[in-house]
Amino acid sequence: MKPLFHGIIAYPVTPFAEHDGSVDLAQLTKLIDKLINDGVHAIAPLGSTGESAYLSDEEWDAVTSASISAVDKRVPIIVGISDLTTKNAIRRAKYAEQAGADAVMVLPVSYWKLSEEEIIRHYSSIGAALSIPIMLYNNPATSGIDLSPELIVRISKAVSNVTMVKESTGDIQRMHRLNQLSNGSLPFYNGSNTLALAALSAGATGWCTATPNLNAALPLALYNAISTGDLAAARQHFFKQLPLLQFIMKGGLPTTIKAGLRLQGFDAGIPRAPLLPLGEKGNDELQTILNGI
Amino acid sequence: MKPLFHGIIAYPVTPFAEHDGSVDLAQLTKLIDKLINDGVHAIAPLGSTGESAYLSDEEWDAVTSASISAVDKRVPIIVGISDLTTKNAIRRAKYAEQAGADAVMVLPVSYWKLSEEEIIRHYSSIGAALSIPIMLYNNPATSGIDLSPELIVRISKAVSNVTMVKESTGDIQRMHRLNQLSNGSLPFYNGSNTLALAALSAGATGWCTATPNLNAALPLALYNAISTGDLAAARQHFFKQLPLLQFIMKGGLPTTIKAGLRLQGFDAGIPRAPLLPLGEKGNDELQTILNGI
Amino acid sequence: MKPLFHGIIAYPVTPFAEHDGSVDLAQLTKLIDKLINDGVHAIAPLGSTGESAYLSDEEWDAVTSASISAVDKRVPIIVGISDLTTKNAIRRAKYAEQAGADAVMVLPVSYWKLSEEEIIRHYSSIGAALSIPIMLYNNPATSGIDLSPELIVRISKAVSNVTMVKESTGDIQRMHRLNQLSNGSLPFYNGSNTLALAALSAGATGWCTATPNLNAALPLALYNAISTGDLAAARQHFFKQLPLLQFIMKGGLPTTIKAGLRLQGFDAGIPRAPLLPLGEKGNDELQTILNGI
Amino acid sequence: MKPLFHGIIAYPVTPFAEHDGSVDLAQLTKLIDKLINDGVHAIAPLGSTGESAYLSDEEWDAVTSASISAVDKRVPIIVGISDLTTKNAIRRAKYAEQAGADAVMVLPVSYWKLSEEEIIRHYSSIGAALSIPIMLYNNPATSGIDLSPELIVRISKAVSNVTMVKESTGDIQRMHRLNQLSNGSLPFYNGSNTLALAALSAGATGWCTATPNLNAALPLALYNAISTGDLAAARQHFFKQLPLLQFIMKGGLPTTIKAGLRLQGFDAGIPRAPLLPLGEKGNDELQTILNGI
Repeated sequence: MKPLFHGIIAYPVTPFAEHDGSVDLAQLTKLIDKLINDGVHAIAPLGSTGESAYLSDEEWDAVTSASISAVDKRVPIIVGISDLTTKNAIRRAKYAEQAGADAVMVLPVSYWKLSEEEIIRHYSSIGAALSIPIMLYNNPATSGIDLSPELIVRISKAVSNVTMVKESTGDIQRMHRLNQLSNGSLPFYNGSNTLALAALSAGATGWCTATPNLNAALPLALYNAISTGDLAAARQHFFKQLPLLQFIMKGGLPTTIKAGLRLQGFDAGIPRAPLLPLGEKGNDELQTILNGI
Repeated sequence: MKPLFHGIIAYPVTPFAEHDGSVDLAQLTKLIDKLINDGVHAIAPLGSTGESAYLSDEEWDAVTSASISAVDKRVPIIVGISDLTTKNAIRRAKYAEQAGADAVMVLPVSYWKLSEEEIIRHYSSIGAALSIPIMLYNNPATSGIDLSPELIVRISKAVSNVTMVKESTGDIQRMHRLNQLSNGSLPFYNGSNTLALAALSAGATGWCTATPNLNAALPLALYNAISTGDLAAARQHFFKQLPLLQFIMKGGLPTTIKAGLRLQGFDAGIPRAPLLPLGEKGNDELQTILNGI
Repeated sequence: MKPLFHGIIAYPVTPFAEHDGSVDLAQLTKLIDKLINDGVHAIAPLGSTGESAYLSDEEWDAVTSASISAVDKRVPIIVGISDLTTKNAIRRAKYAEQAGADAVMVLPVSYWKLSEEEIIRHYSSIGAALSIPIMLYNNPATSGIDLSPELIVRISKAVSNVTMVKESTGDIQRMHRLNQLSNGSLPFYNGSNTLALAALSAGATGWCTATPNLNAALPLALYNAISTGDLAAARQHFFKQLPLLQFIMKGGLPTTIKAGLRLQGFDAGIPRAPLLPLGEKGNDELQTILNGI
Repeated sequence: MKPLFHGIIAYPVTPFAEHDGSVDLAQLTKLIDKLINDGVHAIAPLGSTGESAYLSDEEWDAVTSASISAVDKRVPIIVGISDLTTKNAIRRAKYAEQAGADAVMVLPVSYWKLSEEEIIRHYSSIGAALSIPIMLYNNPATSGIDLSPELIVRISKAVSNVTMVKESTGDIQRMHRLNQLSNGSLPFYNGSNTLALAALSAGATGWCTATPNLNAALPLALYNAISTGDLAAARQHFFKQLPLLQFIMKGGLPTTIKAGLRLQGFDAGIPRAPLLPLGEKGNDELQTILNGI
């Protein structure tokens, strides 16, 4: 039997209104509808893609509630938590749980480098405050903290509701190690788009990705080909979408996904400053890539 | 004539009350008094050392106002700004200016990697909103963004009130390049404690440091020896304080400085979670180092 | 139709005699026989595993001739060239061609960092002196030079007999890029043992590996499973041999492979100083791993 | 009293004859004469600058003997040893000792990464074979091996004739650590040109540099200013020569120094392939730099 979270876990952007830059919950609801109609297996609001780092607490709460309502139990929903202090991470996680989230995904973000002890304490404090599962999220490029596979497995043993891992270093060896160290008992998810073929080949349970905002068919086709053991088809689907994956990773997810949505006629606004909207050259390149797939 | 900011620029920690972890403005005032009495040349509240990343907006404003009152124009004061969004960075910078700060120090912090264009826009937006000088602050280890000397000089030319640079990469070549590229016209400040001897030898205008919280005499002695051209004395002062500099950099500034203050009988509380207070072994090591100098 | 070089390309160690450390050609012949009997698809003497960097020119020539005789056209043979000067690289490559090698594998090794122009000139000078194909070999960890996919494809276009690429950075994205940039026309081979599953899943034509010295069955099983599209079996074969792959990469190939051969009753001597033979603890660990597969 | 090796230790290039690329001992003798006449404190043939990695054993021996004759006891001479095998490193070191060298400088170069145990054994084997002092040389950028300050001090304690350290990582903290760990008893020498001011300020006993091939006056002036405690003059001399130091480090020492010698009318030939001679653009830039100092 498949675990609750598997397959293509889609990360909606957080749309902002054109006139004042405020959160546009109506467009968010539409976007989530589109993703579910396109067949994704789960929804993950307030990830890196969702610019959660740039939202006030009030905005964050509103996006959480609106996302859960929009999903309306059609697929599982996992809410991203990446707060600098343990105190506010707990507050947000409890809010998400009470609002009806199936799980939370926790990224330890830090200004100061954290010791292993501090990271473990961060997870155990959050874990003790919740009764829903936690997906541990490792993404040193955005968070500034790198959790080794050894530490991740240690946390999963110490904190009973840490039951899933999203790995975004882009190093397939990390996934091999997680699988070895946990004897295959700790499901891992791919968080590095261009690693999707390697990760799914190595046994990743799912792929956490913003790609479905622009194209859900190709990620789904790749996942399905791997699931049915059709490696030749998987390879073909992967190389077809690879230029898009490379482009959105290089240009930054909020910037490129919002630009792509606009090219496709869906208005999600622009990212918040200091992020700038994608320039003309980037838009041309993205249009060419979208035309090609 | 020496520039307004020169010499030893001291970074007070932000004391938190024992019972509820709230900001303790009375202790902050005492700490700033002590630093000025010890002879430091300037005060820099709300730097990395001041845990500004872990403060709410209300707390941040309160610390700014209290610091400016405590300094009371005895020495210049420069307030640290390191906010994720340009909007809130401007809000804080304007608040500091109106409260009476002599300058602000701006660190571009980002969840998403920023392009050079985005970084320049961040500084020019803040610069346009202010009439006091800005010290550009480069510290990739905490901020996740590295500004090359070329980019820094470009920003200082594009934004007229960016008139000083704090360099914290720990690479002396960056300071050489800043000096070359600006023909010596852009004053640079050392922000990497263990680089103090090299940076001052190379012509740094000042040293931004949290060390004076625990010992102001040795940094001042090093600066004075360099100013009077006594290299042998400078070397001696530097190697004497080097174990302390290495310890506070390795253990994290809020953690180690607060522990050291407690060892010296000054209660500044403990850092905020996820940061943990210094453990017993660390305290013993720090006590040994403090006894040795 | 499969290319001449495909599948499992085995790298024999260079055995040294116990009493004086001289090259033991009789044992080398036996080892090559064993590898071919075990079913590997090609033989690659004088690779990194073969300690070619530690051989004199006379020894190198002797090993080349003996290897070609030992293979005796049963499978294709590719001879490794990793010389510091272009002049001696050409001498060795011509020697290998005249002795009957099917191809050479060229790794640009350098004391001084080489410019792209210098690397291209190195390959074109060697290419012009030969009429057999060249496999370009990228392995920055041992050679100190990293060739980007862009440069590799540029070289393959400029030098007509550079027709294959062995990639050993361990980064699967390099293989993706090679495939994209050459429109699939430049066959790539995996040179990083622990990347074997990812590389073959992504379409690598072969796997260059020293593993068959100790166990040929598991690499062959992995390759065959991928060839027949049985991803589940491939994953199982890969994770079974992964501890061995991790061990030999971490401990260094000549050191660990020679120790493993001895544990299996085959005397290939010990590596040359400064390399030391595997210690007791390492031998115990290796024995446990070999017992487990 | 100053140690035997101190001040400016000059690294002559190895001149090659125009017509056949063979070693030109007559020009080497002239170059060494020029360096000594210009006032350098010691001569170091067969360093990285001397392309020792590209010489045959016969050439290496000839350059050693010729250099020692040319120096003729006017200043101390230290011969560079950077061989892949311990056996040949010993052979070369003994050759140098018998030919009259005052010391050897040993860089552990490796194809395979060496363990600490292997590095220590390499030095102790060489040390046991010699009765002259050894300068340990750490230069990971060319050798592929990085020796931590802790390991270096450990080696100096285990091998009695390892009495000096040349540090070329470019990280001033390494020198601080060497000084701390040895309580100032292990003299360290700067091997990273652009670090000269910082290293000498921190107490380096000398500066190992190829710069005097093109200009001996400025390095000597910098050293003398530091020796007499005139930091302002030292800074001025350093920044004056910094563009030259940056240029030769970026372009590679044999390539740029040989080009510069030619621009100054001294024929030392060109470096050996795969190295290429400096191109036209580089020559123009170098001429401009030389004109400016």
